[in-house]
Amino acid sequence: MKASVYIATTLDGFIARENGDLDWLPGSDGTVDADLENEDFDYNTFMDSTDTLVMGRNTYEMITSFGHWPYENKRVIVLSSSLTEVENSAELKSCPPEDLYNELERSGAKHVYIDGGKTIQGFLRAGLIDEITITKIPVLIGTGISLFGPLEKDCHLNHIETKSYKNGFVQSKYNALRQHVL
Amino acid sequence: MKASVYIATTLDGFIARENGDLDWLPGSDGTVDADLENEDFDYNTFMDSTDTLVMGRNTYEMITSFGHWPYENKRVIVLSSSLTEVENSAELKSCPPEDLYNELERSGAKHVYIDGGKTIQGFLRAGLIDEITITKIPVLIGTGISLFGPLEKDCHLNHIETKSYKNGFVQSKYNALRQHVL
Repeated sequence: MKASVYIATTLDGFIARENGDLDWLPGSDGTVDADLENEDFDYNTFMDSTDTLVMGRNTYEMITSFGHWPYENKRVIVLSSSLTEVENSAELKSCPPEDLYNELERSGAKHVYIDGGKTIQGFLRAGLIDEITITKIPVLIGTGISLFGPLEKDCHLNHIETKSYKNGFVQSKYNALRQHVL
Repeated sequence: MKASVYIATTLDGFIARENGDLDWLPGSDGTVDADLENEDFDYNTFMDSTDTLVMGRNTYEMITSFGHWPYENKRVIVLSSSLTEVENSAELKSCPPEDLYNELERSGAKHVYIDGGKTIQGFLRAGLIDEITITKIPVLIGTGISLFGPLEKDCHLNHIETKSYKNGFVQSKYNALRQHVL
């Protein structure tokens, strides 16, 4: 089983403002750059390669706030100790990353998309992330929710490739070296 | 006059560990990757294009700790309110970024290299940085001294180019849009 991260950050490393806002992300207001009309930054290719999505409460609530659940054909796990139910076809769980990882692997998952700041950090700290794709947006916002957080030890990565786009997005893909033996 | 930043950071955005250590930077122990023996990541081209270097106390003390002053032919300003003298051919100043910027411009400086975390953050907050070159090292260290800090407002950048190197370094160059009128 493979676990991957695919996320956009500001150049100063934030995935959202303190209040969760993504207004710094071009296109978040519905406008489309004419040069990039058909450009999805490989998101669909990535999504199609995954069978399972794991997210935390914040990401889940942001997605449901859009009023349309975009993951009908995907197994979705919401990790939360405070929610009591989740809508749609999602499953609610509250367990450490290692336990969820083992459960998903036993259940036959092949490629898991790990999403949301705290969830990503938890899986990274547990050494359970295989691949990280970060799309850097050319803006500094100063404060916000960081993609990365404290680690018990350094995590070395292998750079796979970097692409830059006409609109200034720079997308780098890394393999994380497994730090942790389950 | 142009003011530029040229700096390496970890993938999680740190320019040094909390104690100033750069041990995460490949080559910091004196070893050289055979593939990259003659690779300087355009550092010398950048340095040769500058006439003046501005740094804070921490960067100054790190450089003098090496026992060799590498900037004999460059005007160097050390910004510090606690140091009382600086060695070598450096000049000690204690003033806001705006004042130093104006003074350097009046004195005929053409290209100023702004170095060190606090100094870079001060010049960025004042809207005085024109170009930023960041070399991302493929490692996460979890905590340390951040390149970027809080800002009063978003700072939008224009992506100029990104290069990736055999050893996994990814170097991106941006123009900062001047936010501030002097």
